[in-house]
Amino acid sequence: MNEDVLTNQPIVRYENGKLIEKTDHYVTEFPLTIMVNGEEFATVICSPNHMEELVLGFLASEGAILKSDDLKSVQIDDSKGFAHVELTKPLGERFEYSTKRMIASCCGKSREFYFQNDAAVAKTSMSKIVISPKQILNMMTRLQSASAVFKQTGGLHNAAISDGEAFFEHRQDIGRHNALDKLYGYCIQRHIPVRNKVLIFSGRISSEILIKAAKIGVGVILSKSAPTTLAVTLAEDLNITAVGFIRDGNFNIYSHPERVQLEHM
Amino acid sequence: MNEDVLTNQPIVRYENGKLIEKTDHYVTEFPLTIMVNGEEFATVICSPNHMEELVLGFLASEGAILKSDDLKSVQIDDSKGFAHVELTKPLGERFEYSTKRMIASCCGKSREFYFQNDAAVAKTSMSKIVISPKQILNMMTRLQSASAVFKQTGGLHNAAISDGEAFFEHRQDIGRHNALDKLYGYCIQRHIPVRNKVLIFSGRISSEILIKAAKIGVGVILSKSAPTTLAVTLAEDLNITAVGFIRDGNFNIYSHPERVQLEHM
Repeated sequence: MNEDVLTNQPIVRYENGKLIEKTDHYVTEFPLTIMVNGEEFATVICSPNHMEELVLGFLASEGAILKSDDLKSVQIDDSKGFAHVELTKPLGERFEYSTKRMIASCCGKSREFYFQNDAAVAKTSMSKIVISPKQILNMMTRLQSASAVFKQTGGLHNAAISDGEAFFEHRQDIGRHNALDKLYGYCIQRHIPVRNKVLIFSGRISSEILIKAAKIGVGVILSKSAPTTLAVTLAEDLNITAVGFIRDGNFNIYSHPERVQLEHM
Repeated sequence: MNEDVLTNQPIVRYENGKLIEKTDHYVTEFPLTIMVNGEEFATVICSPNHMEELVLGFLASEGAILKSDDLKSVQIDDSKGFAHVELTKPLGERFEYSTKRMIASCCGKSREFYFQNDAAVAKTSMSKIVISPKQILNMMTRLQSASAVFKQTGGLHNAAISDGEAFFEHRQDIGRHNALDKLYGYCIQRHIPVRNKVLIFSGRISSEILIKAAKIGVGVILSKSAPTTLAVTLAEDLNITAVGFIRDGNFNIYSHPERVQLEHM
């Protein structure tokens, strides 16, 4: 996997007062353009591994596919950076892909989506999962050990999906959304239900990441960083438990703390 | 400034095996919709300070304004999250704002822009600046001390613009681009030329950040992290010196090392 996400290139290094030529590895950034039924849909900048999962998860989280049956075929052309997707039906007019802000139209006071497409796909979580502090701490530890290999390069986003027990799948990407989309794509490919799973994320829970979690449909998201204010408002409203600042055996619960229960209650 | 970028809210904290209610501060995320001549132009998610600079820098880096004379007025309505911008002339048809990928059309092999708008605004740097390792190390130290106040919250992007000497201006934002746009806006407002300035950035130099530097027009960008492969290719092509991994008195030069000269040569 190393060779996909890292590349070696020559650099000039300043060390101990001298400039010297050497070789260093750094993170690969790969533009992948997703064509749906022959039309350009979007370009994502990604780490070039698990690209079929990425395409699947991205299309599902944007609402372009609702179930795996909607998909006829996916072909990745990684020499040119294209994914050719055929669906079993046309995309429909909702996919005049819109980044217009929702200005006081259909949304109530507390539902602070800012883009129309988000409101169409992000859903209130129906998750019934309940987890213990021990499970929360364990899942973060597992994410950190899974991602330790790449610590040297810094800054790749790491994410995992877990049931708090044996099931634990890890992905990483230069793009925050992509890491989550790869996990979603993995689950769609294998018909693994996500509703009662937990997302574990290496970075901050911003509103965009929270909306992505809502699109995927999980009930809990864990992070070692704190969420933003807008993410917490959205988490409250979308019935998602946001847990952050998971450090040194402690953590903060920012929304819907009822899903976190002490072991001996 | 604290009150703009941070907010206090109630949380549930797990500490020493117990769940307790307390108050914590976290990072404010604010959607600002930019209206240009009465039409919606874009929505940026930002830390709500220096918003006029942000709007100015954003519009300039997108090529919507080319000089400060193009601007008639900017009004920030921070209760509703709108910036109302009046230009002295219409935006013109180039601003059918495009996120289409450039598919082997006007660009050569090495100019790997992936969006049409980027190619229209990002320019090859004409910067004649030459800096010493000592200046590089000093500028990164200054960025780090300027941003230390907010270390507790983690994850805000910090950026500065400097001439390597007395001039040093620092901004921060939840959005990577925004921090740089605020600096650009600051310089435009005060008619400060940017060509021979240096950008100092807290995060990774991705292709998007490199393109932003090219749009601003600087010749050097410094980071404590490594750049991505695509960023280095672009830096090579756009005549920008990318310096990264600035740590413990050492650093790496990834492109155009000729702008970095040892003190005693």
